Amino acid sequence: MINTLQLNTTLILPENGLEQKLKQAKEEHRKLKIKLGFDPTAPDLHLGHAVVLKKLKQFQDLGHEVIIVVGSFTARIGDPTGKNKARKPLSTEEVQHNAQTYISQLSKVIDIEKTKIVFNSDWLDALSFSEVIQLMSKVTVAQLMHRNDFNKRFTDNTPIAMHELVYPILQGFDSVKIECDIEMGGTDQLFNCTMGRQLQESHKKSPQIVICMPLLKGLDGKEKMSKSLNNTIGLTDEPNEMFGKTMSIPDTLIEEFIDLTTDFSVEEKKSILLKIENGENPMNIKKLIAKNIIRQYHDEAAADLAEIFFSNQFQSKNIEEQVFEPAFITSLSHDDHRLSLIDLCHRLKNDLSKSAVRRLIENGGVQIDTIKMTDPDALIELIPQTKIKIGKRAFFELL
Amino acid sequence: MINTLQLNTTLILPENGLEQKLKQAKEEHRKLKIKLGFDPTAPDLHLGHAVVLKKLKQFQDLGHEVIIVVGSFTARIGDPTGKNKARKPLSTEEVQHNAQTYISQLSKVIDIEKTKIVFNSDWLDALSFSEVIQLMSKVTVAQLMHRNDFNKRFTDNTPIAMHELVYPILQGFDSVKIECDIEMGGTDQLFNCTMGRQLQESHKKSPQIVICMPLLKGLDGKEKMSKSLNNTIGLTDEPNEMFGKTMSIPDTLIEEFIDLTTDFSVEEKKSILLKIENGENPMNIKKLIAKNIIRQYHDEAAADLAEIFFSNQFQSKNIEEQVFEPAFITSLSHDDHRLSLIDLCHRLKNDLSKSAVRRLIENGGVQIDTIKMTDPDALIELIPQTKIKIGKRAFFELL
Repeated sequence: MINTLQLNTTLILPENGLEQKLKQAKEEHRKLKIKLGFDPTAPDLHLGHAVVLKKLKQFQDLGHEVIIVVGSFTARIGDPTGKNKARKPLSTEEVQHNAQTYISQLSKVIDIEKTKIVFNSDWLDALSFSEVIQLMSKVTVAQLMHRNDFNKRFTDNTPIAMHELVYPILQGFDSVKIECDIEMGGTDQLFNCTMGRQLQESHKKSPQIVICMPLLKGLDGKEKMSKSLNNTIGLTDEPNEMFGKTMSIPDTLIEEFIDLTTDFSVEEKKSILLKIENGENPMNIKKLIAKNIIRQYHDEAAADLAEIFFSNQFQSKNIEEQVFEPAFITSLSHDDHRLSLIDLCHRLKNDLSKSAVRRLIENGGVQIDTIKMTDPDALIELIPQTKIKIGKRAFFELL
Repeated sequence: MINTLQLNTTLILPENGLEQKLKQAKEEHRKLKIKLGFDPTAPDLHLGHAVVLKKLKQFQDLGHEVIIVVGSFTARIGDPTGKNKARKPLSTEEVQHNAQTYISQLSKVIDIEKTKIVFNSDWLDALSFSEVIQLMSKVTVAQLMHRNDFNKRFTDNTPIAMHELVYPILQGFDSVKIECDIEMGGTDQLFNCTMGRQLQESHKKSPQIVICMPLLKGLDGKEKMSKSLNNTIGLTDEPNEMFGKTMSIPDTLIEEFIDLTTDFSVEEKKSILLKIENGENPMNIKKLIAKNIIRQYHDEAAADLAEIFFSNQFQSKNIEEQVFEPAFITSLSHDDHRLSLIDLCHRLKNDLSKSAVRRLIENGGVQIDTIKMTDPDALIELIPQTKIKIGKRAFFELL
């Protein structure tokens, strides 16, 4: 049963815990409760989330119960320091609305009919201050400071507001409340998930096991896929968008995408990897991945159409001997989708030094949509389908 | 006005703050609010507390308002980890009872009629969890970890439970609630008192100033006077007990006691210090201190009687050429008032090495109440008036 879950690349704590939990569930003739936390400030799901969701679906298919815990308590508080503008306090209505959006996106991967959705404000709002003190007394400062990011910020003298230390405790308390058997998350959630184990034990309950799935990298090939980094493929992206974005991933991401984003069978994966080994053009492998992804979140026909659209848009230009390579460029911030010309060219052709790029621009070697641009500091709007020509042989089209 | 407060030995934060607060109060024709926190788990007041209380009395005499904040919120929670047996959760009735005891002892130093008594559970119980989060967000982890004892425990890997970090924040919030102008405490309260300044500022209120009085040492001459160390002179001790205990302080404590426990005038103090310089027997100086203390907490007649009682009890034996030196020995714990014979003798005559003491006992050189004791490990009850003879010339009587 465990083998069918294909958990090779995931982190399970404790190592033999899943086996025991499954055995226990069978003996007690009950379903396991599998928890996934959801932050209702960012309801847009992407392929990174899907890595975890697909594992949840496997548990659902085995007959276990998936419980989504909406973090409504903290979302309603927002960032109390007011520093993080992206974390404004949300009203109950906004939380409900985001949860609805989230649930409808979830249904692209898991079976919503069989999924239980709960809001943690239901129990956290009801805690009295003295109950909060009781809860906090179960955890030591040193434990919390072991969390990677806290530790780094503490060492770097970057302020950590006291309430931030409380949030992992709350996440753990959610597990106590729903009597969770297994908490799922990305590997960045390992610490918070183990908090649940500890609090369940101190509440004399059987501790959950923790399953953390690997984090998918974003289109930039460097950072994890994350909405705030604007490097995602969203589960609700249109087929053409999915296709183009997938074609834009760096070649180094191909194997990770095959592993984490496709539903190829083990045999199909093996055969694709063999092709790569035999020197197949990466472009063709990315097409296979793109079509597989579209098949999962749209359908077969959409995948075929997207391939045709892509070929028409980009590859037909082959005839004019100008192949515009699709390029996905992340802007520096959420609000400002612009980059200076020199930065844009440097990002597109990072085999050139910045000073080489500057010379090229100043000597008239760079065109945007056929217009020669000679000011390296000109701000360029990152508008899809903008075409950039750098030197004589490099052609890009923004996605 | 400031000079009359004689604040030379105290710590004031910020340095010129008191001057400004007094000026401000005068301009606004209002009294200053002076806060003292009180932990209702330990209602027995001693001379160490009186150091702070006398300063409060001076403010009262100047027309300002003293507010005692009873820490009823935390006392009712107790130690949630259950590790500190001395901090059992108290019922509302127990808190009330302890507060009554405390108030009646306060009246020995300050004017209770003019004193406002408030219970912090009145506002802390009413805080919702999200208000608690808001409050915690005002303070950073690094700030709290700067508190000496937290810092030491963190460095030593001694666990600090998370709720402990919350308590200084609560003490600060009390200052916000009562709109405190000045918070008083011992120097060990400096950190917690500055928390009040910070939280008042983040609540857009004028920050309190902090006045910390020096900590009086206990009868052992080493640790601070504290009930848990059993080294105190209580404000409600009987005159004879006060006299004997004062006579037992080590000579090194004489100047500190003159400064912090007596109400001698500046001239009287000078004259006593001159006597010490001129080689006066310390015994006689201690008698002056003892009588002064008894005059403050009982009366003149009680002081005189205590001196006579002491002389009769201890010094008349001079005739028999056996002067029993009064000795105050602290037991190791609150529950167990016993010490092994070897430890007792070593504490009484610490100019002898432990092995020397052992030899002396084994050779029959030690008597308790005229009975020769030869087992160094015999447990001796620390009963007042027990007489101990060590060697040929050392005679002690326990207080």
